[in-house]
Amino acid sequence: MELPEIVSHLFAAKKAKGLSFADLEKILNRDEVWIAAAFYRQAAMSEEEAKLLVEALGIAPIYIDTLTDYPTKGLGPVVPTDPFVYRFYEIMQVYGFPLKSVIQEKFGDGIMSAIDFTMDVEKEVDPKGDRVKLTMSGKFLPYKKW
Amino acid sequence: MELPEIVSHLFAAKKAKGLSFADLEKILNRDEVWIAAAFYRQAAMSEEEAKLLVEALGIAPIYIDTLTDYPTKGLGPVVPTDPFVYRFYEIMQVYGFPLKSVIQEKFGDGIMSAIDFTMDVEKEVDPKGDRVKLTMSGKFLPYKKW
Amino acid sequence: MELPEIVSHLFAAKKAKGLSFADLEKILNRDEVWIAAAFYRQAAMSEEEAKLLVEALGIAPIYIDTLTDYPTKGLGPVVPTDPFVYRFYEIMQVYGFPLKSVIQEKFGDGIMSAIDFTMDVEKEVDPKGDRVKLTMSGKFLPYKKW
Amino acid sequence: MELPEIVSHLFAAKKAKGLSFADLEKILNRDEVWIAAAFYRQAAMSEEEAKLLVEALGIAPIYIDTLTDYPTKGLGPVVPTDPFVYRFYEIMQVYGFPLKSVIQEKFGDGIMSAIDFTMDVEKEVDPKGDRVKLTMSGKFLPYKKW
Amino acid sequence: MELPEIVSHLFAAKKAKGLSFADLEKILNRDEVWIAAAFYRQAAMSEEEAKLLVEALGIAPIYIDTLTDYPTKGLGPVVPTDPFVYRFYEIMQVYGFPLKSVIQEKFGDGIMSAIDFTMDVEKEVDPKGDRVKLTMSGKFLPYKKW
Amino acid sequence: MELPEIVSHLFAAKKAKGLSFADLEKILNRDEVWIAAAFYRQAAMSEEEAKLLVEALGIAPIYIDTLTDYPTKGLGPVVPTDPFVYRFYEIMQVYGFPLKSVIQEKFGDGIMSAIDFTMDVEKEVDPKGDRVKLTMSGKFLPYKKW
Amino acid sequence: MELPEIVSHLFAAKKAKGLSFADLEKILNRDEVWIAAAFYRQAAMSEEEAKLLVEALGIAPIYIDTLTDYPTKGLGPVVPTDPFVYRFYEIMQVYGFPLKSVIQEKFGDGIMSAIDFTMDVEKEVDPKGDRVKLTMSGKFLPYKKW
Amino acid sequence: MELPEIVSHLFAAKKAKGLSFADLEKILNRDEVWIAAAFYRQAAMSEEEAKLLVEALGIAPIYIDTLTDYPTKGLGPVVPTDPFVYRFYEIMQVYGFPLKSVIQEKFGDGIMSAIDFTMDVEKEVDPKGDRVKLTMSGKFLPYKKW
Amino acid sequence: MELPEIVSHLFAAKKAKGLSFADLEKILNRDEVWIAAAFYRQAAMSEEEAKLLVEALGIAPIYIDTLTDYPTKGLGPVVPTDPFVYRFYEIMQVYGFPLKSVIQEKFGDGIMSAIDFTMDVEKEVDPKGDRVKLTMSGKFLPYKKW
Amino acid sequence: MELPEIVSHLFAAKKAKGLSFADLEKILNRDEVWIAAAFYRQAAMSEEEAKLLVEALGIAPIYIDTLTDYPTKGLGPVVPTDPFVYRFYEIMQVYGFPLKSVIQEKFGDGIMSAIDFTMDVEKEVDPKGDRVKLTMSGKFLPYKKW
Repeated sequence: MELPEIVSHLFAAKKAKGLSFADLEKILNRDEVWIAAAFYRQAAMSEEEAKLLVEALGIAPIYIDTLTDYPTKGLGPVVPTDPFVYRFYEIMQVYGFPLKSVIQEKFGDGIMSAIDFTMDVEKEVDPKGDRVKLTMSGKFLPYKKW
Repeated sequence: MELPEIVSHLFAAKKAKGLSFADLEKILNRDEVWIAAAFYRQAAMSEEEAKLLVEALGIAPIYIDTLTDYPTKGLGPVVPTDPFVYRFYEIMQVYGFPLKSVIQEKFGDGIMSAIDFTMDVEKEVDPKGDRVKLTMSGKFLPYKKW
Repeated sequence: MELPEIVSHLFAAKKAKGLSFADLEKILNRDEVWIAAAFYRQAAMSEEEAKLLVEALGIAPIYIDTLTDYPTKGLGPVVPTDPFVYRFYEIMQVYGFPLKSVIQEKFGDGIMSAIDFTMDVEKEVDPKGDRVKLTMSGKFLPYKKW
Repeated sequence: MELPEIVSHLFAAKKAKGLSFADLEKILNRDEVWIAAAFYRQAAMSEEEAKLLVEALGIAPIYIDTLTDYPTKGLGPVVPTDPFVYRFYEIMQVYGFPLKSVIQEKFGDGIMSAIDFTMDVEKEVDPKGDRVKLTMSGKFLPYKKW
Repeated sequence: MELPEIVSHLFAAKKAKGLSFADLEKILNRDEVWIAAAFYRQAAMSEEEAKLLVEALGIAPIYIDTLTDYPTKGLGPVVPTDPFVYRFYEIMQVYGFPLKSVIQEKFGDGIMSAIDFTMDVEKEVDPKGDRVKLTMSGKFLPYKKW
Repeated sequence: MELPEIVSHLFAAKKAKGLSFADLEKILNRDEVWIAAAFYRQAAMSEEEAKLLVEALGIAPIYIDTLTDYPTKGLGPVVPTDPFVYRFYEIMQVYGFPLKSVIQEKFGDGIMSAIDFTMDVEKEVDPKGDRVKLTMSGKFLPYKKW
Repeated sequence: MELPEIVSHLFAAKKAKGLSFADLEKILNRDEVWIAAAFYRQAAMSEEEAKLLVEALGIAPIYIDTLTDYPTKGLGPVVPTDPFVYRFYEIMQVYGFPLKSVIQEKFGDGIMSAIDFTMDVEKEVDPKGDRVKLTMSGKFLPYKKW
Repeated sequence: MELPEIVSHLFAAKKAKGLSFADLEKILNRDEVWIAAAFYRQAAMSEEEAKLLVEALGIAPIYIDTLTDYPTKGLGPVVPTDPFVYRFYEIMQVYGFPLKSVIQEKFGDGIMSAIDFTMDVEKEVDPKGDRVKLTMSGKFLPYKKW
Repeated sequence: MELPEIVSHLFAAKKAKGLSFADLEKILNRDEVWIAAAFYRQAAMSEEEAKLLVEALGIAPIYIDTLTDYPTKGLGPVVPTDPFVYRFYEIMQVYGFPLKSVIQEKFGDGIMSAIDFTMDVEKEVDPKGDRVKLTMSGKFLPYKKW
Repeated sequence: MELPEIVSHLFAAKKAKGLSFADLEKILNRDEVWIAAAFYRQAAMSEEEAKLLVEALGIAPIYIDTLTDYPTKGLGPVVPTDPFVYRFYEIMQVYGFPLKSVIQEKFGDGIMSAIDFTMDVEKEVDPKGDRVKLTMSGKFLPYKKW
């Protein structure tokens, strides 16, 4: 997976400043997952957001230009090899059709949007092992008939 | 995608009985998504669960045998063509690495389990268009060093 | 490409009745492309639409059941081999990114929906060779920030 | 997707000049989609067109040479990962065969040309959300028998 | 490669009648390659052609129906394994771009049509080993600008 | 498709000298298609041929070394995306097996060689649109039994 | 890998008769590897060979028809999963280019034919473990220039 | 196919010295095919072998280091496009299973090793066209039961 | 994944008899993993082993024939979708090259045989969660030089 | 396979220092396989581990930064071409489902973790050829029901 140069630059600056994505969430007033998406050039920032980020990271203002460009999206190979990312592929393979059945039963024929879409990550402390709580919210788009 | 014969049989019986997955949730005392996974042979039922299902659907007890077998999991092609399922592939492609950054920042090097894992679907009524709320909870598994 | 049995049955009945998709457009009050999509099990009909179709084609009412099911969508191989269908793959390969640039310049970062979407086919008679006029209309979905 | 160097150079110059593809449409007297295709090296310009573009963008005349070369066409991976471009892949997967049925019913056995082909993009303002109107016009090519 | 049932039926009838494709060329007044394409359901026959063929092969008239249908085209795997067919893949891999350079130099930017296209096979007797002479004739289609 | 550096150098020199492949045909006494194949490093030149080419193009004699090396052959992706080259893939997909039937009927079990093989391109002027005439001649190689 | 029905029928008959390929070599006067290729429908027999085989195996004469047809060749998946067959894929991956260098140094630019080609298998008894001796003989085909 | 830099360096030095692989066979006392494999970094040399080679080619002793490293093996794409190498893929596709039948009949269930393995190339002069004689010798490894 | 019919028959018989693989280990005097491999037709049994199995399972003696045949090996898709099997793919992807470095450092250039190979499974009871202990033993095969 | 630059740097330093992975095992108090995984950036080190390694290898402390980053995991192509690594792919293909049957019979429906996972390599000296003993220990993760 070859990432654009800006990506490693942003991560290096964030590390140097000792900032977490949670810290940036407060500075930019955007969710940490969305900010991480912008770090990987999977989301486009507004002028203001880019300015805030550039300032917070102490990097050259010229990066605002790239951060506000509409990126080509999609990362990594067809089937991900990284075990973290692969588990989402596995969830799609195992639970994709069951979810389709349950959601279409509730909403009719259509899809959950991945564009009008938000995500939230929470850490649930648990003595048997902490858990990741991941909440997705996507607009339901019914198939238009014509 | 060629599904085992039992799958269409289960769906037909459920339709004939006029039962929704939400109805089955009450009868089996299991979440509707998990029950839908069992319908697709992506989850194995216990004897009791299978008996309850077979009764509720009014199908032959012989199906208990299949429903309790440990299945080979994974459905459909490498990259899904169905638009509903594809959106989950897209979420993995676009947000997989951002999620990895955020979650590993909170938990350390490791993964969110897709085995010690649960899901919940809710319908959020919204005047601008209803939304699908999908909550995943997976145990965080830190990489063991040795 | 293995199509469900109902597909060839529908096409055979339509041929036997001497009906074109344009004829069916008048009977069902739906666009001929959408009806053809329903023939291929790429769109789900309502009870009423399915009844009208079953009657028009003179086939058994039992098919209403299948026609109203929410189908698994997507036809044919990863890269289509049929020359007619391939040309649409070629248009995507050659003009996909140029369209992205033009449309995102007009609308911002987002996509043209393939769900809230309609299509229309017209024949343009032309002495130098008739032309296919294909009009697509898709809702623009801006990327939600969160 | 690795694009030839000229591509980013053209986009950077266009941005620096504050020109939209719609502006270039007026200057070159070619459709904005076709011009965007030329930007991505998916279409070859004539000497005059290339000169007009080079002037408008204020870039070195040496680029005329490249802009008039007949390019190798086709962009990005076999199945596109970018959500904007993917939707066109999805349209081909879902509606390719239905279109084949409708168009071949009207025209006979043959294809819609992707070479003797034009496209037009319009923005339709709509209170429920703006829509992209995309019109394609391709010559119908009947299969020659021999 | 799974061929439609009619294919083996046609080949068996042709063998039983002791007819070569060259014989059928005289009966149908079509080139033997085109007739072989129709045998494989890669070309659609007219009513008259199909009648002549059905008669010549002594098969049931019901096959006229299939022979006149517009087929889904494309045979075999992505990269052919059959050595005969593979050699054409190899010619495309080795000489495709050289041909593009030579032909576009003569005709401008465009393609050789595979639709408005004919082929002819001849056997050239040669003491050093007979040769296959294959002549293709395709209309040149220049890229339309718009 | 990443071509060796020599390729673009050869094409640039040819353009600078204003030479067509037809011109080079006269200078090298080899067919223009074969010369284009050598340009793409799909054919190896003899010392003399390489000298003539180097002289004609006015490039450094050091290139003789590369031009006479036996190259690794095969260009571009598994399924070509360039529309010109794709049409040859399409011809193989649609007409490969029909050709096999016709040619093996005439010659027995075997293949048309792509090694003991020549090609010729002609432009046929035609008021309805010029045509590409492509003639291939390959030695027939019967399967050896042992 | 789905083999034609005749394949398992031939192997079953051979087993029932207690014949080895070495036995059939004597009966048909063809090499055992070539006969095994004919068993898998990878080689076409002459009428006489097919008659001898049918007799030797005690199967119905109707199989002569299939055994003499020119088959579609190539067995199994793109990369073989069977460990025996995979080792030949590995030899090609590891030693293919080294062989190309050595053989083209001896013969010039060209290939070893896989059509004008024979193979022989011998068992070499060895106290450290028996060895397979495999001898291939293929005609060298120099690239024709034109 | 991207080869490590050392590969082209070795070939260039060999060419400059006017040495054939047959010459190196005498100098290194190893088979020419094995030496060619070492050139492509498909085999690891001993210190002494590497020293002899480095001397013979007149290259810097630092290359001994690389030549004695245990390399990552396997060259080129999944299905080779080079016609020379492809023929070995074809032999595996067409004769792989027949060889399996013949060899396992002689030796039992197991494989021919590609590790405890040698190869030899000979040129057979033949008035009808010279032939490549390729002899492989691999230890037979029976499947261990446990 | 389509398994031969005998596979489901063997599993059904085993279930009906209430036998575990551990039970069969005692009856056949072979390791349970190897027996499971034979169930999936990934290992060939001897006459005696097959007889013992057929008796133990109470199935028809005719199955001895199939159980003693040398099978075509390799199960499931190129990248496994079943989460259990996928983890072994992941281990190969993540630890394959590290293992190569460690093992080749200890043994020299070569491989661990997957043919002269055994496996053993043990259950380690652990209050923090039971563990699978998997022991593989493969003969080291050094690369032969020649 | 393109590895990050640090990988070759680490291996070069280790070679220069004459250290084996077994030596590093003693210095870092971590298993040699895990250390090799860290060399390939398939495992993240703690600050202390990285410091010990950097010191032992005599490389710049700046590498600590990279060695402690959480890496993107997974090495090499979808199907490995290197014979050493391929054997693990083969083991997964041949024994993956048999292992699933045996392990799930012992533990219930679930998987062996590749995250809460350790490995150990031992050399077993054997007069018939040394053997690699590889022990894996992975936590069994039962499928959670919900």
